[in-house]
Amino acid sequence: MGVMGSNLALNFADHGFSVAVCNVTPDLTDKVLREHPHEQIKGYYDLKAFVGALERPRRVIIMILAGKPVDDVIDELLTVMEPGDMILDTGNSYFEDTVRRAAYVESKGLFYFGVGVSGGERGARFGPAVMPGGDADAYAHVAPFFEAIAARAADGVPCCAYMGTDGAGHYVKMVHNGIEYADMQLIAEVYLLLKYAGGCDNAQMSDIFEEWNTGELRSFLVGITSKILREPDDLGSGMLIDRIIDRAGQKGTGRWTSIEALREGVDLSLITAACNARVLSNCTAERAAAAAGVGTEPCADVPANFVETVRRSLYIGKIIAYTQGFALYRAAARTHGWHLDYAGIARIFRSGCIIQAELLGHIAAAYEKDPELPLLLLDEFFLTRIRSYLPDLHSTGAYAAAHGIPVPALLSAVSYLDMLCAPQMGANLIQGQRDYFGAHTYERTDRPGSFHHQWDHVIQSY
Amino acid sequence: MGVMGSNLALNFADHGFSVAVCNVTPDLTDKVLREHPHEQIKGYYDLKAFVGALERPRRVIIMILAGKPVDDVIDELLTVMEPGDMILDTGNSYFEDTVRRAAYVESKGLFYFGVGVSGGERGARFGPAVMPGGDADAYAHVAPFFEAIAARAADGVPCCAYMGTDGAGHYVKMVHNGIEYADMQLIAEVYLLLKYAGGCDNAQMSDIFEEWNTGELRSFLVGITSKILREPDDLGSGMLIDRIIDRAGQKGTGRWTSIEALREGVDLSLITAACNARVLSNCTAERAAAAAGVGTEPCADVPANFVETVRRSLYIGKIIAYTQGFALYRAAARTHGWHLDYAGIARIFRSGCIIQAELLGHIAAAYEKDPELPLLLLDEFFLTRIRSYLPDLHSTGAYAAAHGIPVPALLSAVSYLDMLCAPQMGANLIQGQRDYFGAHTYERTDRPGSFHHQWDHVIQSY
Repeated sequence: MGVMGSNLALNFADHGFSVAVCNVTPDLTDKVLREHPHEQIKGYYDLKAFVGALERPRRVIIMILAGKPVDDVIDELLTVMEPGDMILDTGNSYFEDTVRRAAYVESKGLFYFGVGVSGGERGARFGPAVMPGGDADAYAHVAPFFEAIAARAADGVPCCAYMGTDGAGHYVKMVHNGIEYADMQLIAEVYLLLKYAGGCDNAQMSDIFEEWNTGELRSFLVGITSKILREPDDLGSGMLIDRIIDRAGQKGTGRWTSIEALREGVDLSLITAACNARVLSNCTAERAAAAAGVGTEPCADVPANFVETVRRSLYIGKIIAYTQGFALYRAAARTHGWHLDYAGIARIFRSGCIIQAELLGHIAAAYEKDPELPLLLLDEFFLTRIRSYLPDLHSTGAYAAAHGIPVPALLSAVSYLDMLCAPQMGANLIQGQRDYFGAHTYERTDRPGSFHHQWDHVIQSY
Repeated sequence: MGVMGSNLALNFADHGFSVAVCNVTPDLTDKVLREHPHEQIKGYYDLKAFVGALERPRRVIIMILAGKPVDDVIDELLTVMEPGDMILDTGNSYFEDTVRRAAYVESKGLFYFGVGVSGGERGARFGPAVMPGGDADAYAHVAPFFEAIAARAADGVPCCAYMGTDGAGHYVKMVHNGIEYADMQLIAEVYLLLKYAGGCDNAQMSDIFEEWNTGELRSFLVGITSKILREPDDLGSGMLIDRIIDRAGQKGTGRWTSIEALREGVDLSLITAACNARVLSNCTAERAAAAAGVGTEPCADVPANFVETVRRSLYIGKIIAYTQGFALYRAAARTHGWHLDYAGIARIFRSGCIIQAELLGHIAAAYEKDPELPLLLLDEFFLTRIRSYLPDLHSTGAYAAAHGIPVPALLSAVSYLDMLCAPQMGANLIQGQRDYFGAHTYERTDRPGSFHHQWDHVIQSY
């Protein structure tokens, strides 16, 4: 049990549930009990005694490193658990592993749940967003526990709901993390715009984000950005933000999400741009060499009303990030036979997790109105915002592109919207080229069917 | 034997090699011999007789649908072939399948080559680019055949060279196809810019591409674009390009390449943008609904010297597409233990294949000068071009973003260059957020080590 595991145990205990805990290393169990004594938590040093102490059907939560260790623990548990019991993996497992494990455990007569848990250490301790996937009927045996410890939205609804069979919960959590990448990247780009084009200092930017956090952009990430920007450096003078190196790490779920989108044939450009930006941020030597070799251009002629223009651009950026993420949910539901409740997913994200935001209520409303909405942005609420803010997004993107301020996620939002809205994308030319060199045939605007044109060929050489 | 297989056989036969051909369906063998009679080609109706007719070491080329059929044919061939013989897969197999098959076939004492072949039907018939991967010593037994039938660059060098062990040849071909996607997308975006901002008609655009094809953009794809734009509609009046529906298909190798880049942690944004653009082009209903709901903005105030500005932007776009593609080769070489010769790869691409272009000679020169160049664009030839053309790319990107012309690949090039060159990417803010909510720690600009800041936490709800 690391921090996440012990925090989850304490959260259950605080809600009146008796919790048995057990670790592969007995010392760790002692450490947890010593550091977090709680009358509802009892430690066990042997898997058989631990399992024997549980009420039936037994519900065993695994919170360990994703990968092979999960398979090993499952195999150990299967030697001491019985048909009808339940194993619940609350780690960040890859959803395909969860699908495989569910089939395996269910073949033994037990139940298996892949449970997405978001909110980091504090979420685990005081209320995470919980995304359980597994057998629909068996869910009744775990619902009361997870719904009790989950975060609650402003309307009191717990941020936990049944997601679907086998890997659905881990899938929903994976895409949540991808959206988190996009949200964070969009905010980082806005920070660059305010700093380099807007000429704002950290305090001014902190005030701007604080102000934005009272309106339609109200969200956990905008809130903490305001705080981060006014945090003094605890190891020196000045502000902490200016001492943090310009490189960001990643643990892989954003990349998994981007790969899934490519497999599904869904354009997930903002999340992918966010992954790539983190990758490039770590190419320190290449960045230095390119900056020295190419040079940069100074900003000038900042448009009037720049801060509000940027705010609106950020809002559309978020709409596009969620549009793409939810399009991936739709594709995955078809591929994997899941009945995903898109409104329910949005409601779960309203509290406890990193991407919690005002916006999510509107997303839930859109899918309540039309559960089969093909693209989130086609909902009238979002269309209205986009109609009104698109000139701002265009203007921000154009300013950044003209002045060398790197805003890959915002420019991906520009491209995505413009591809959808433009009268033409140029794909006719691409299909013409494909028919020319590969006889891939083309379709026509004026009649059905596939056609191959007899092109004249020439051979050049280079 | 489909068109590719019979064209390859005819190509070998034309170069004086005796070719035995065999098909799973005997009728197909008859059809090939009837339609393409050639004294150097002999048909066989039985795998044993076919294999018996071959000189030793036997070299059997498989050109069939990628996937399970390849495994089946390999197993059949292993029953009649002998140690020291060679099986060569010239189809578009996924490189990991090739790695697996090479290990399998080599465990039986035979040799296995995964051979990338580019150039479509005409390339197969009159000279493709050939990228063989397999055992380094055994390559001597296949080199004379493939080098004879390969295309030749303007300097007479055959477009075929040993790529590396097992899957290296198919990997090089896969990324070639990805670059092809990016090249085609960039040209499609330029077409939109010239049409919607430049106000050019098809004939004018055809002239522009023809003119460009005499300079540094000289390439197969620019050449055929000029021809496509002046092609009359053979099924009606007007120009063919205006009758081709605005949707492009894809067969998957571009998507494979994008997925590999995510797995390797390489930013391959132009190729991914090209894949996504093809995906979105097929979302006909969503495009219509978005266009109706959001509306579009007309173009105005076209900058002076627009055509030249666009030409320079296309050139930088190509540099970035190749920079990213070759960065993926470097990463893959490390991952898979291949000794890829980047200059050699560029030389092979100079003729026979879809992406053949003037530019490739400069790429080969850059890697000849420095085989360990971290990023292609850091070579002085390309840096000089970028320094000179970057204001044009910025201006084109800004114009397109401001006016709703969708140019996702060009804007990806803008973002990629600006991320590399800007003094800051905003990753410090992202890392601050990660430390805030996930205790992921951060690094500092003024001292080594990892640090965790004690943040104040607040809980909001939505």
